[in-house]
Amino acid sequence: MPAPNAPGGRIPGPGYTKIQTRSMTYAVGFLLDHGLVFAADSRTNAGVDQVSLARKITRFEKPGERFMALLSSGNLAITQAVIRQLMEDLDTGEDGDLHAVPTMFAAARIVGAALRNVYEVDAEHLAEQGLEFNAAFIFGGQVEGGEARLFMIYSAGNFIEASVETPYLQIGETKYGKPIIDRTITHSSTLHQAIKCALLSFDSTMRSNVSVGPPIDIVAYERDSLKSGLRVSLAEGDPYLGLIREYWGGALRQAFYDMPDPDWLKSL
Amino acid sequence: MPAPNAPGGRIPGPGYTKIQTRSMTYAVGFLLDHGLVFAADSRTNAGVDQVSLARKITRFEKPGERFMALLSSGNLAITQAVIRQLMEDLDTGEDGDLHAVPTMFAAARIVGAALRNVYEVDAEHLAEQGLEFNAAFIFGGQVEGGEARLFMIYSAGNFIEASVETPYLQIGETKYGKPIIDRTITHSSTLHQAIKCALLSFDSTMRSNVSVGPPIDIVAYERDSLKSGLRVSLAEGDPYLGLIREYWGGALRQAFYDMPDPDWLKSL
Repeated sequence: MPAPNAPGGRIPGPGYTKIQTRSMTYAVGFLLDHGLVFAADSRTNAGVDQVSLARKITRFEKPGERFMALLSSGNLAITQAVIRQLMEDLDTGEDGDLHAVPTMFAAARIVGAALRNVYEVDAEHLAEQGLEFNAAFIFGGQVEGGEARLFMIYSAGNFIEASVETPYLQIGETKYGKPIIDRTITHSSTLHQAIKCALLSFDSTMRSNVSVGPPIDIVAYERDSLKSGLRVSLAEGDPYLGLIREYWGGALRQAFYDMPDPDWLKSL
Repeated sequence: MPAPNAPGGRIPGPGYTKIQTRSMTYAVGFLLDHGLVFAADSRTNAGVDQVSLARKITRFEKPGERFMALLSSGNLAITQAVIRQLMEDLDTGEDGDLHAVPTMFAAARIVGAALRNVYEVDAEHLAEQGLEFNAAFIFGGQVEGGEARLFMIYSAGNFIEASVETPYLQIGETKYGKPIIDRTITHSSTLHQAIKCALLSFDSTMRSNVSVGPPIDIVAYERDSLKSGLRVSLAEGDPYLGLIREYWGGALRQAFYDMPDPDWLKSL
């Protein structure tokens, strides 16, 4: 059982100030034969009466040499501290320099190490306030001479990697949007398909969880391009988000009405 | 943070005997203008190496006078203790007698009270072993002279009720199967539609969580009939479950491929 003050989905009452702002919303990354696709919403909340925006996709790139994208979820103070440290170490030539690190694997270890540093400083103080040390990242990209890779980094700083068999990773509110991905995307899907699937996955999630919502940021990376590809931000009221919602809802309802009956149902 | 031994989705290693058998799988109930529909899978597990079956729908009925169905999830020792107590009190004329209780609201309070009794006896001992008191029920039916009603009873013994605006309630692994219900079912849907939607909702859940699986039990209740309607159990390998999986997967993929592109995607 979480402690009474833990941020565990409970809605704090008025005047409740202990809960910290978090982006426990939704982000997904795809590892495809053709490249990488990242999508994240931009909402954060510290209870339903304090919803605001924070960009959750951070890019690190040296065009022609390397491209990396970092998607965050969890306690915003923690994830911002990690990103600040990664930014500060850029171009220093130190161990934590994502602009100098030779491989994506070593880069993922740098992100994990930055998270562990924040843990060292903050975790005890959070625990004293009954708060969990809660943060997760999706991190992917490509460094010249290496393969495009995609990782999910846990709050403990260790990580798992996407593969041909498991071509996507999710953080935050992952479940509502998972069935559509499982049914449509494989490693050989195109970037187009992954982007449209990501938007459908967000549509399902937003319909079932009000704390996830636009703007939705999308970043696509074409394999071996070593620079950002398409970057789009779809705001509240975006016509394509509206079209998807209407089209997909209609297509699902039609498929549902057309679904054959089992014999045993004819008796009812 | 749950205690290290708590049943929180962690997979126990070999020789781990502390985890208790639970049915944290999936069950759903619908409150419709035409009646009630209940669906539940029958798997229980105490870790992935100990999966077995336990029926999760219990009916209490006196045809022509009352019909009730109880769906359970959580720690199997707790839910079985509750059901045993409800069974023992039947036809005793005591306060806990579901065969004598005058309204569905009073019946839901009886189920909640039975759960609280089990809590009094067991919770402390579970806590000593680092285990949570974890159980939930969906409970619905109709008593002569009253309306058909549907409740979800929490482990604390209190409960919420379905309504015209919220015509369904879920327990267990609820998220994967929620989007399809949100998109297709309202209070005015037919029993047919709710049964087919329940099976699709299970299909999505089973695809994404291996601990949910057939047999799937379905009980339908026609409003004012005051007796069980259709009762079906779909076993592993049931041809209709196979047909649904193939039909629905194909329909979703087709709808996905037919989905229009946004203008900004043409540049990719």
